[in-house]
This record gives sequence, C-alpha cells and structure tokens, in this order.
Amino acid sequence: MKDFLELAAARQSCRNFADRPVEHDKLVKCVEAARLAPSACNSQPWSFVVVEDPLVVPEVAKTSQVLGINEYVSGARAFIVLLEEHAVLMPRLRAFLDSQYFAKGDLGGALLSLCLEAESLGLGTCILGLYDREKLSALLNIPLETRFAGLVAVGYPADPKTREKTRKPLESLIRFV
Amino acid sequence: MKDFLELAAARQSCRNFADRPVEHDKLVKCVEAARLAPSACNSQPWSFVVVEDPLVVPEVAKTSQVLGINEYVSGARAFIVLLEEHAVLMPRLRAFLDSQYFAKGDLGGALLSLCLEAESLGLGTCILGLYDREKLSALLNIPLETRFAGLVAVGYPADPKTREKTRKPLESLIRFV
Repeated sequence: MKDFLELAAARQSCRNFADRPVEHDKLVKCVEAARLAPSACNSQPWSFVVVEDPLVVPEVAKTSQVLGINEYVSGARAFIVLLEEHAVLMPRLRAFLDSQYFAKGDLGGALLSLCLEAESLGLGTCILGLYDREKLSALLNIPLETRFAGLVAVGYPADPKTREKTRKPLESLIRFV
Repeated sequence: MKDFLELAAARQSCRNFADRPVEHDKLVKCVEAARLAPSACNSQPWSFVVVEDPLVVPEVAKTSQVLGINEYVSGARAFIVLLEEHAVLMPRLRAFLDSQYFAKGDLGGALLSLCLEAESLGLGTCILGLYDREKLSALLNIPLETRFAGLVAVGYPADPKTREKTRKPLESLIRFV
C-alpha cells in the first residue's frame, strides 16, 4: 500500500462510476475500517446499511438526486448508509455532557476511514450530504427518528486518474507556538 | 506502509509517551494529512495550532487535566489544536442549510486523518475531548468565540505494542439490503 499521505491525496469524490459490480467482501472491508475508528469513550455511535441489491441501488440514488445535484450517482453500484446510534459516555462525563456530544465528529472519522479503505481497494466513493431522509428511511426500513450521518456512493471509478486537489495553502491554516 | 486496515487497527490512543522529542516536520505532515481530508462543498472548515514550545506544552497539558482524567498527557511532547472555521457552502445549499451544518463531521474526518498520518510516522496520539477552553484560548491567543474541534496529544509511544481493540462485533452493526 501507498504511504498514508499518498492515500489521503489519492482519495477523491468519484462522480463517474464504471459499469462494473462491486464485490460484497470489499464493501464489508469498508465497514470494517469504519468500525475500527476511534470514538469518545469508545462509544462507537454507529451502524451501517450496505445496499447492493441491483433493484434497490437505483432507488437509493434517486433519494439523493435533490436540488438538481448528485445526478451522477445513478452510476453507483452500491451505497453504504452510516447511521448515528446512541453513545454511552463514561459516568464522569455523563453529568456534564449530552450522550451525543462527540458523536458527529466520531461519525465523521468513521466515514473517512470507510472511504480510505475503499480507495485502498481501488473503489471510488462520493460522500453525499443531501438526500430525502424520509424516502431513504422508508426504502431501507430505517426508523424515522434514526439520524443519518452519511450516505456514501460506491463503485469502481470510470477514470481512476487522481485530479489535482484544491485546498487552501497549508501556511494559511497553520500556526506554531 | 501497511495495508490501510492494518494502519486503522494499529492506531490507538497513546497514554504513555516516551521521553523523546517530536520532529517539527512530522507535526507538519500530520496537519498536511488533515488538510487533505474531504469536506462538504470543499469548505475546509478548519485551522490548526501546533504547540511544540517546551515551555507551553506542559501548560496545554494542564488545561486538559480536568475531572480527574487525562493525567497521562503530561508526558506528551506536542499538541495539535484543531479549530472550527467558517464553512462556505455552494449557493444552492445556502438557502437550506446553516453554513456549519456539515462542519462537525468534516472536522472529525480531518482529525482522524491527522492521527492516521501520525501513526504511519511512528507517533502516538490521543484525541482529548475535554479541556478548559477558556484557559486554552488564553494560552494560545485563540479568540474566545472560536470553536475547538479537537485537541490531540502527540509523542512517541513508550510502548509501541498494539493493544487488542475492543469494538462491537461487525455483525451487530451491519445490515445488508
């Protein structure tokens, strides 16, 4: 495998998926990487729905085609839904903090871990932030009160070339003390 | 470098730091890995303060020794503070979503990327969730209204052995459709 910085630089949003199915075992490995992510008090406030049924995948794609964005996800061959679960924090913290105080950040880490494992397996991913939660809940039998933490489109990239990353310059973001 | 799943499994909270300084360039690489993390609309809602001054590092450690936890961080040789910055989302989303709607999750990804790069460089990290924000702001000249997204203790691990990870079983977290 590449050096970690190379892997981080290579991972990019895939918006053009190849017409090639994704192996079940690779999807499981992506979730395994997310499962290993750190979380506050090891609370692991997550669960996952892996969508690979070829009849359901296009329906999930449709739920994310809102506001005229995400049209390209119709090419995705699988989706992984990341759900927020209840976090149990250590007793000393429970008196001061809401149980979900750290959950959003922890889920963000799990989501990135999932996408980095996908990249290392040659898969493309796109993290979708907007989707019709009501329709997605109904489609996947997810209780309406469950919070979504992310929807990831997965497939082999049609063009695996790494685009140049657009990022703010390092020196504008960092200060030394 | 290791396979990504191996790297994810090897990264663990370091609570016993060696008496060995951390190279400046390695700290910069950790921030570089965070800078490359994905974010909603590429908003990059983050900035970083790297603390390596041997007179200031112990003072930062003290700010996190609250509620009788985090005593061990007195051994850390550096800290990296992750700050939440304003996120600019694409115009179509601005009408519906608060600018910081995705920021917490994005910052969680940046934080994990930082820790994974540290691991790949042989460094130990511990993500600290609790610290005296007022004292930390004053110590590092951070405006009080700036939101902290994480404080990471950094150093070489005194014992680099990987402990067995305690995680909920994969089959209890995953569902296939």
